[in-house]
Amino acid sequence: MSVADVVAGIGPADPVAREAARLRQARLTKPPGSLGRLEELSLQVAAIQGTECPVVRGKAVVVAAADHGVVAQGVTGYPQEVTAQMVLNFLAGGAAVSVLARRQGVRLVVVDAGVATPLAPHPELRALGIGPGTADMTQGPAMSREEAEACVLAGVGIARELADEGAEVVGTGDMGIGNTTASSAITAALTGRPARQTTGRGTGRNDEELEHKVAVVERALAVNQPDAGDGLDVLAKVGGFEIGVLAGVVLGGALTRRVVVLDGFISGAAALVAHSLCPTVADYLVASHLSAEAWHGVVLSHLGLRPLLDLGMRLGEGTGAVLAIGLVEAAASCLTEMATFDEAGVSGADSGD
Amino acid sequence: MSVADVVAGIGPADPVAREAARLRQARLTKPPGSLGRLEELSLQVAAIQGTECPVVRGKAVVVAAADHGVVAQGVTGYPQEVTAQMVLNFLAGGAAVSVLARRQGVRLVVVDAGVATPLAPHPELRALGIGPGTADMTQGPAMSREEAEACVLAGVGIARELADEGAEVVGTGDMGIGNTTASSAITAALTGRPARQTTGRGTGRNDEELEHKVAVVERALAVNQPDAGDGLDVLAKVGGFEIGVLAGVVLGGALTRRVVVLDGFISGAAALVAHSLCPTVADYLVASHLSAEAWHGVVLSHLGLRPLLDLGMRLGEGTGAVLAIGLVEAAASCLTEMATFDEAGVSGADSGD
Repeated sequence: MSVADVVAGIGPADPVAREAARLRQARLTKPPGSLGRLEELSLQVAAIQGTECPVVRGKAVVVAAADHGVVAQGVTGYPQEVTAQMVLNFLAGGAAVSVLARRQGVRLVVVDAGVATPLAPHPELRALGIGPGTADMTQGPAMSREEAEACVLAGVGIARELADEGAEVVGTGDMGIGNTTASSAITAALTGRPARQTTGRGTGRNDEELEHKVAVVERALAVNQPDAGDGLDVLAKVGGFEIGVLAGVVLGGALTRRVVVLDGFISGAAALVAHSLCPTVADYLVASHLSAEAWHGVVLSHLGLRPLLDLGMRLGEGTGAVLAIGLVEAAASCLTEMATFDEAGVSGADSGD
Repeated sequence: MSVADVVAGIGPADPVAREAARLRQARLTKPPGSLGRLEELSLQVAAIQGTECPVVRGKAVVVAAADHGVVAQGVTGYPQEVTAQMVLNFLAGGAAVSVLARRQGVRLVVVDAGVATPLAPHPELRALGIGPGTADMTQGPAMSREEAEACVLAGVGIARELADEGAEVVGTGDMGIGNTTASSAITAALTGRPARQTTGRGTGRNDEELEHKVAVVERALAVNQPDAGDGLDVLAKVGGFEIGVLAGVVLGGALTRRVVVLDGFISGAAALVAHSLCPTVADYLVASHLSAEAWHGVVLSHLGLRPLLDLGMRLGEGTGAVLAIGLVEAAASCLTEMATFDEAGVSGADSGD
């Protein structure tokens, strides 16, 4: 199956189920609209699942990790080996996303999408074997188009497998020292904004370091001239392996009609790639939170998404996605499990307002 | 035990545990500050529990229901019998808070604090037997001072019982046709703002109805002249039985050193009463969400609280509290269960920023 085949297989969410769900919402024992954004969210889940009574039981988060050749340009405060160290931390259960996923009953799927430091095999680690991370995008393309396609298809495969195994909601998460730089380049390429308006501080850059980071993103874009009309070209030239996998998870989630809950800035860049390949994926996307990483809001606006949470988080790993999966579950369960006015024998309002 | 005894027994949260928790947060495997508001929240829970490794296992939400004589003034769009009907809906598991609490493993404690319609005994319903709701506060005090004290002490008792039974976090929730009107009057009395700046639309009032509601609140305040320096006087004159119970839950939570998660506007009014009696309760309070009910932000500002969620909800029942209890749990578990850099063998940042 090619990426084009995947895209061809993606259809819109179901407007008939959405309308049925809207009518059901209006009959539930509460003042109309009083559950706020949970109501709209429940309609989205209904449309995705094609039923007015959606169910969220199986939950998973895919955390894809990879390294970035652009770290050679000094764009980050952490050494590259942290990517591998954190993968081990995910597997050992000590990372934030490990703790949150465990606590919320969300299955944690850890993917070595291209970590530079060799990782020993582990039963809970999916190693893609595509390559040991990207090349330095300021010197040429980050990866080949074939590698980009392989990453995306790997993500599609993981999403399909999770869907087969009962996940109704799939979150995205990332780990990769240097990946805010790649995400800024992708965002610039796909939104048409200058690098200065897509590049933030990542994990703690000061003003001077931020200026340097902006210049690095500008150079990567100038050297590679990514084609804004072709998400795979953008991914190959200025992306990352984990970003490609997450773009694939977005496409695969849409293909299998699952809710896809995006984490922060890196997941947003991955969604931009997927959206560029197939705008219909927007029907399936939920923005978990507004990251404290600058310009995340630009990404979400481009996707037409409004974040559920705004807690000043900027960790990645899927931490925001896991928190918001709880809200998706809450929204769907209210729609499906609440009594209607008739069922509960509760009187309605005395006026139509 | 009198309310004064309860107040005398409340001490501040533990600053030593808070500082130990702050130091522990800095050693966890993530960039400093990257969990945003969850970090601050975890320090609060640590200070409340007196340990750098707080635990949230037992969770409960107290939903207090009562009726309001002021409905005789035509301040609400729903008939009074809805209060009782919704209590039955809580018990049957069909209300929004029932669904959310069940889904999140939060124990639902339903209290008949003074519902006008007689309710048959039910094993899951705590009936206080103080009275069948308040008198019309535009004609005189809503209740006697003795009744106000009885409500508060009943709430303290429930909070103590829940603490004894293992609840580390207690949420507040309300049901009572007419209770936004009482809450607006309490807020005006205790914040010193005019009724127009504390009175919102409740469940769907139009402009004309809102003007009438403001006038009713103004009349209640003029007739009763509540003493802004005495929370019990304010509660008695312009409050509600369920609001008194929730004020007691706040006091009892602080007394037993439990996290108290406030729901929306009515819970906020209850917290204003408790705060007026004992400002130290603020150490124990978490604001779950910003309600779409106008002026809730005024209540939270007065309490020095910043809401975690802003989802446009305005249902009450404890629905916002239950959602935010999940965030409290998440915050505490990250602090307690995440690996430190040393434990996980993860390298730190190369600079101090």
